[in-house]
Amino acid sequence: MNFITGTYTDQYQLTMAQVYFHNNGAEQEAVFDYFFRKSPFKGGYAIFAGLENLLDILEDLSFTKKDLDFLKAQGFDRKFLEYLKEFEFKGKVYSVSEGDVVFPTRPVVRVEGNIIEAQLIETVLLNILNFQSLIATKASRIKLVAPDRTLIDFGMRRAHAFGSYHASRAAIIGGFDASSHVMAGRDFGIPVSGTMAHSFIQSYDDELSAFRAFAKVRPDDCVLLVDTYDTLKSGIPNAIKVAKEMEADGHKLKAIRLDSGDLSYLAKKSRKMLDQEGLEYVKIAASNQLDEYVIKSLLEQGAPIDVMGVGTNLVTGKPDAALDGVYKLAYTKGKARIKLSENKAKITLPGKKQVFRLRDSQQRLIGGDLVTLEDENSVEEMFHPFEADKSMKFSDCQQEPLLKMVMKNGKRLNKTKSLKEIQKYSQERLAEFPIEFTRFDNPHIYKIGLSKNLLDLRNQLVTEEKEKAL
Amino acid sequence: MNFITGTYTDQYQLTMAQVYFHNNGAEQEAVFDYFFRKSPFKGGYAIFAGLENLLDILEDLSFTKKDLDFLKAQGFDRKFLEYLKEFEFKGKVYSVSEGDVVFPTRPVVRVEGNIIEAQLIETVLLNILNFQSLIATKASRIKLVAPDRTLIDFGMRRAHAFGSYHASRAAIIGGFDASSHVMAGRDFGIPVSGTMAHSFIQSYDDELSAFRAFAKVRPDDCVLLVDTYDTLKSGIPNAIKVAKEMEADGHKLKAIRLDSGDLSYLAKKSRKMLDQEGLEYVKIAASNQLDEYVIKSLLEQGAPIDVMGVGTNLVTGKPDAALDGVYKLAYTKGKARIKLSENKAKITLPGKKQVFRLRDSQQRLIGGDLVTLEDENSVEEMFHPFEADKSMKFSDCQQEPLLKMVMKNGKRLNKTKSLKEIQKYSQERLAEFPIEFTRFDNPHIYKIGLSKNLLDLRNQLVTEEKEKAL
Repeated sequence: MNFITGTYTDQYQLTMAQVYFHNNGAEQEAVFDYFFRKSPFKGGYAIFAGLENLLDILEDLSFTKKDLDFLKAQGFDRKFLEYLKEFEFKGKVYSVSEGDVVFPTRPVVRVEGNIIEAQLIETVLLNILNFQSLIATKASRIKLVAPDRTLIDFGMRRAHAFGSYHASRAAIIGGFDASSHVMAGRDFGIPVSGTMAHSFIQSYDDELSAFRAFAKVRPDDCVLLVDTYDTLKSGIPNAIKVAKEMEADGHKLKAIRLDSGDLSYLAKKSRKMLDQEGLEYVKIAASNQLDEYVIKSLLEQGAPIDVMGVGTNLVTGKPDAALDGVYKLAYTKGKARIKLSENKAKITLPGKKQVFRLRDSQQRLIGGDLVTLEDENSVEEMFHPFEADKSMKFSDCQQEPLLKMVMKNGKRLNKTKSLKEIQKYSQERLAEFPIEFTRFDNPHIYKIGLSKNLLDLRNQLVTEEKEKAL
Repeated sequence: MNFITGTYTDQYQLTMAQVYFHNNGAEQEAVFDYFFRKSPFKGGYAIFAGLENLLDILEDLSFTKKDLDFLKAQGFDRKFLEYLKEFEFKGKVYSVSEGDVVFPTRPVVRVEGNIIEAQLIETVLLNILNFQSLIATKASRIKLVAPDRTLIDFGMRRAHAFGSYHASRAAIIGGFDASSHVMAGRDFGIPVSGTMAHSFIQSYDDELSAFRAFAKVRPDDCVLLVDTYDTLKSGIPNAIKVAKEMEADGHKLKAIRLDSGDLSYLAKKSRKMLDQEGLEYVKIAASNQLDEYVIKSLLEQGAPIDVMGVGTNLVTGKPDAALDGVYKLAYTKGKARIKLSENKAKITLPGKKQVFRLRDSQQRLIGGDLVTLEDENSVEEMFHPFEADKSMKFSDCQQEPLLKMVMKNGKRLNKTKSLKEIQKYSQERLAEFPIEFTRFDNPHIYKIGLSKNLLDLRNQLVTEEKEKAL
């Protein structure tokens, strides 16, 4: 990840770090929580993604000479620059497993370190986790409506410049099968996929010549784009011709691709034409402004599309474009900390915390995550975080701790997980949730509950802080 | 730009390149146009951005050993891989100047080269230009409503991962003054800006101690965040106290920052409180979900905000999230090429073309750009591209050619322009347009016109291609 250095951050992290440095910050313990406040896409959940990349970045984070020269020119003082020259992140990271299903308000990642390092990494953490979680969530919604189709990310050309790199990775976590992004494929072990553009067809004097030229060079990976002139009158008849020629040479046409027009109508007609010629094995791929809603509609219409190419709407996380994840101070100088807000839902949860997923004796989710202080055991009641009169008792409950230590002294504790493993884990975790929680319209709210101790601590700090404000 | 190598592309560019390679593509001249079809944000224009970065990338584009190993594993043949090993982009690029105001349908960049190289660069060109043009356009809209305020990009944490890097650059082109993104500042010469987060205040036992600690270390660049507890009861009174202490030491508090609540109300009250204490020089900065509409409203309410920090809505290009730029074949094998579409507005313009901006004898824009074939002179009439009966005559018209050669034999012809120069140029170009063209609601449509020769060529090719389809 040689693109990233210490200057991949917001300037205010450095100004704050400078002040902390000159006030013994290197000796001051701090704990920060990463969490988000609203599930994206008006949905009921998010898929947590980006962790492995973040850990890679944190392990290597340092300030180069170029960085330090630039910061010197910005007026940072010599002593602080000497500190940055030797800077390494030496903290601890506790995290939900990458790919897990996560919900608003409760911690997803907890960072512990001295306050300089723990503060300095805020921006890169948010930058990596917010975006990948957004895209993995989008991808998972598409996978939910088309579980048995092949899903390919085609979004690189409209992605946010270098953001395309992690977008393609996150799409796989959310359930996609492949990507057109070759570099992401190279670095993340993503199956890559790609065939031809209209320009390829146009560059030949006729469609049939273009198809033949392509089939000749790529006989075992041949997908023909059939909509350059007229899908049903020209593209499919020519594709059938080439498929027969390939058969004569012992090869098989893999698929045809539709990229315009009424995809449902054209897919049905194309399927029929192919089948009449004994080409049942030739798959149909489709692309063009697809998203989870269009795909749902296509499948409801019975469109025989085997492969869906999804581009802009996937990689830009449309229409949300951002996950609102934040990174808040929860503990420092031996004291739990809280951030007040006029908006009750924005008041943070203080202290070092753990989150538990609750299941009944049959291993079924009971519909909520429990947030406790770090050292609590056998909690049997949880309280609504904002409505004092709501609580729920449970017993005989399996409590799975979600935050696990993944980095210590700035070194990761486990070997990097493969994307395939993360995807598989994500699909298994999501499959635990009844459809009421994952449906698109007015999903059932998965609950968050606080332990009594956490609730009491929060209430006490709210009172103290309100006094400070007077 | 060591992040980018030849695999920063869609797989289909490589499969097509492979077929071209085995069919003498290295000898086959090709011309592609980059253009977009719809101005973003329901506006009437776009700001063209990203060119300098693209040229840097093209000059250095090559396949590394890691790339070639990966492609070998994908089944690409030995001869083609040998070609890629030596690959350099050796083509020509003609482009509109970076920062210029551009409009749908007409070419913005024209690439000439052999068909392998010209096709291979499609994805990276789209990836860089689409995104930066989107963000520069968004930034220019914000600049248009707040021309005399300081505008700072704060978006890094919610930007699309590494996309943040170019987002911050593009924001400057569109008219922003500074960015929080330190690495973008380092590499693009952007003024960087940043102060403190709420966590900084929370990490101290009280707000006043936090303010004092910060002012002590950064006396000449001190901006205090005043809304952690209560802006008017605590934040401003404490800021005033610290400002007075700083005065006693010969320093000046630079600004206070509001990040929540009713920004108009709080800015007015804060201004009054500061002024009453003789602190007229202390500026007011505000942030929190700002975009061009919120800023317009704040200024209409007379909010005395000097500095606007704009984040997510800027760097994600909300609500559009993507510019729909495309890259289409216009010429190859000695023949102009066209792409048909059922949607008339999607039929491409064939041939090697030039675009002229028309001004009258007083140097005023006459309201349209003229597209001609490359070698045409003194055209005096232009035709509506899709409505045959609409045309416009002009004479005594100054015709400024917009596409200039910026790269030849894969080498850039001019030295890199500074971001400041590009921004200045952009602002001057945009200022030429009467407000009717730049307003947010139902902007006046800036015309595109085709020369008679181009129109005739297009009509002829449409007829020929339709025959092919039968």
